[in-house]
Amino acid sequence: MSKTAIFPGSFDPFTIGHLDIIQRALPLFDTIIVAIGNNREKSCMFSLEERLDNIRRVIKSNPHVEVMTYSGLTTDLCREKGARFILRGVRNLDDYEYERNIADINRTIAPDIETVLLFADPSLSVISSSMVRELNAFGKDITPYLPQTADK
Amino acid sequence: MSKTAIFPGSFDPFTIGHLDIIQRALPLFDTIIVAIGNNREKSCMFSLEERLDNIRRVIKSNPHVEVMTYSGLTTDLCREKGARFILRGVRNLDDYEYERNIADINRTIAPDIETVLLFADPSLSVISSSMVRELNAFGKDITPYLPQTADK
Amino acid sequence: MSKTAIFPGSFDPFTIGHLDIIQRALPLFDTIIVAIGNNREKSCMFSLEERLDNIRRVIKSNPHVEVMTYSGLTTDLCREKGARFILRGVRNLDDYEYERNIADINRTIAPDIETVLLFADPSLSVISSSMVRELNAFGKDITPYLPQTADK
Amino acid sequence: MSKTAIFPGSFDPFTIGHLDIIQRALPLFDTIIVAIGNNREKSCMFSLEERLDNIRRVIKSNPHVEVMTYSGLTTDLCREKGARFILRGVRNLDDYEYERNIADINRTIAPDIETVLLFADPSLSVISSSMVRELNAFGKDITPYLPQTADK
Amino acid sequence: MSKTAIFPGSFDPFTIGHLDIIQRALPLFDTIIVAIGNNREKSCMFSLEERLDNIRRVIKSNPHVEVMTYSGLTTDLCREKGARFILRGVRNLDDYEYERNIADINRTIAPDIETVLLFADPSLSVISSSMVRELNAFGKDITPYLPQTADK
Amino acid sequence: MSKTAIFPGSFDPFTIGHLDIIQRALPLFDTIIVAIGNNREKSCMFSLEERLDNIRRVIKSNPHVEVMTYSGLTTDLCREKGARFILRGVRNLDDYEYERNIADINRTIAPDIETVLLFADPSLSVISSSMVRELNAFGKDITPYLPQTADK
Repeated sequence: MSKTAIFPGSFDPFTIGHLDIIQRALPLFDTIIVAIGNNREKSCMFSLEERLDNIRRVIKSNPHVEVMTYSGLTTDLCREKGARFILRGVRNLDDYEYERNIADINRTIAPDIETVLLFADPSLSVISSSMVRELNAFGKDITPYLPQTADK
Repeated sequence: MSKTAIFPGSFDPFTIGHLDIIQRALPLFDTIIVAIGNNREKSCMFSLEERLDNIRRVIKSNPHVEVMTYSGLTTDLCREKGARFILRGVRNLDDYEYERNIADINRTIAPDIETVLLFADPSLSVISSSMVRELNAFGKDITPYLPQTADK
Repeated sequence: MSKTAIFPGSFDPFTIGHLDIIQRALPLFDTIIVAIGNNREKSCMFSLEERLDNIRRVIKSNPHVEVMTYSGLTTDLCREKGARFILRGVRNLDDYEYERNIADINRTIAPDIETVLLFADPSLSVISSSMVRELNAFGKDITPYLPQTADK
Repeated sequence: MSKTAIFPGSFDPFTIGHLDIIQRALPLFDTIIVAIGNNREKSCMFSLEERLDNIRRVIKSNPHVEVMTYSGLTTDLCREKGARFILRGVRNLDDYEYERNIADINRTIAPDIETVLLFADPSLSVISSSMVRELNAFGKDITPYLPQTADK
Repeated sequence: MSKTAIFPGSFDPFTIGHLDIIQRALPLFDTIIVAIGNNREKSCMFSLEERLDNIRRVIKSNPHVEVMTYSGLTTDLCREKGARFILRGVRNLDDYEYERNIADINRTIAPDIETVLLFADPSLSVISSSMVRELNAFGKDITPYLPQTADK
Repeated sequence: MSKTAIFPGSFDPFTIGHLDIIQRALPLFDTIIVAIGNNREKSCMFSLEERLDNIRRVIKSNPHVEVMTYSGLTTDLCREKGARFILRGVRNLDDYEYERNIADINRTIAPDIETVLLFADPSLSVISSSMVRELNAFGKDITPYLPQTADK
């Protein structure tokens, strides 16, 4: 049976921390689906389309990674895509508490779908999308935190 | 390439919480090696041989699970067994801090080996080997916390 | 002297986790007053009146539980109702930090009123009003998380 | 039905922090039984008898507080004394994690016994028995951290 | 080389907790610059000008403390003022996680600027600007939490 | 008035993490005294004399750093050396809770001595003396975690 994981997130923007989690998780799964959540409540730096386009350019050479957008519950997306796993990275204690809560809810509504956690690399654990958005808002160079796209 | 995970621990004793982690992790890996660490500093309830024998009886019908004992560093065992993954369950904040620390050390000495975490099921998260040992010391019935062996 | 506790909250909605805390706290107190805070900043799933009506139907057969709405500080409500205790359940670390902070503030302004904490049952600790609201927003069945009302 | 709580601990020594928890919990219970655990593994500053004698002198004028020693599980003591509650104070995050773990174990083996938590007063939260023992070992004055006995 | 620290914050309002951190940090630095961040997203109790004026009146007799407002990144302000240190107080776990995150970001964009932490005094750790704002909103007396200004 | 800080620890062994804290703290203080605690309860990798000798060789060219051994309370050492500050690095949540506890005790017995915290560099935060001791016990190369001594 094929091992597919959903890697859900806002990815606003997609950082080198996100890319690191995907690369380290690739040996675990046959397919990783990067699923960009359409959260209308959050103000965003990049539109959903820009994020979709950007992540596709970052990982385009890899047949084991798909990129898509979605609305709704992540467990519903898992069902739809035949994915039994949700992949998440954990950078710190706040992440842990957040992930635990979400995973417990997901287990309640979809006991057959498993959340798989990887620890963020300590040297990347400071990098978050919100940090990048804030640096960008103050006119700082954010390119060190963003993966290079294939056409650069 | 075969996906092998080491599931290291003292397993003194092996609980239904340990079994649950293995069962939930089985869809992720081709082989899970339950590796009983030989920690001479800890006083134990069951001898290494008893634990080895007991876990084998619990999981004997499953060709995807092996049981063994080991001394030394878990990452060295991974190399020896060709395992790229270390599997661990996380029950609470203390576990998280402990696992994060161990995983960071392991990453430092063996960057190619990945620690994969699953959250303990909340209904099982109270069950730990040390709790079982303590209840046993006070003459309480501990069978509800131990998996049934195949010959019962 | 009568032992009265205020059990304050938004209760949007009132869950089986809330009910469990009340049931387990009943042996401690003569009267538990479920006090629905009127927090206008929060967007709500049920109106204040619906929540009041719903909780009353859930617990109507119990002479030791009252239900009411309130605005203002919980300690002021305690004074008004002659309650010396504030009852709260704690599900996880985030709850703990939150409750500690509120309890410390309450102690500062009302040293004679004591906050009494019960741990949430682990099997219920995933259930929060915000989780129920989110599941509801995505069209999921939320009835497993809500107490049965007396007329059902 | 009488409301009896066990307040278990090592009390080596009994501090003003312990006394504060008892005093604040007295309005909740008809009887609080201070139960000094006989933990032979811990090296102690005062013998079990000294601690028993000392706590009795501290609280002797209060008919609602009893003092005793015990071995074994706290929940067994609760059964024996007809106590439905275990009283504990929480000073910080480490305490919280510890208490949560013990309470979950107790709930598993004795679901009818409830753990009731009070937050330590912030101004007393630094005071622990282990801190007092350490200061004492270095020849510091520890009397500010110990309650006055009735005969002083 | 002169030792200058930026003490950044919203200070809405400036509390006796803030003043305590400054007083305890004064022996460490030649100059402490209280830098009131102009965060337009937060709704405020006092205007930027009121806060500037108020803090100046509180600390006016001290030649080692300056007060100013700023917009933008704190590390940019450090550069501008020749400050190599950012001073922060930590009251609890949430503060710790928050400060760690900010400090890590600051280290990434300005490795030469050091964040220096002091623990809040436990007896003051309950006092936060948000607590004071909330008490004020409910018509409570907040003067115990505010430093006396020099002209009172 | 001279600014002297005690940097207390076991330093068994002294790691590049310890050195980093000293180097980053040097701009804050006139003198940093590395004070090696003589904790007889801990089993050690290096003798007190070896540690003293080793740290001296690591930092010998710096007139602002002294190295010594001590027994007793750190605050007593501060008094003896005229040091008003205790310097400590914080690597993670466990460190934070530990340091908070020690700092609160120190404040209680010596209110005029201030604990100053620096966050460990994330890329070094995995490195602890206990990790180095464990790697050493398993025959691993520990030189990457130890500072180079001046004579190498």
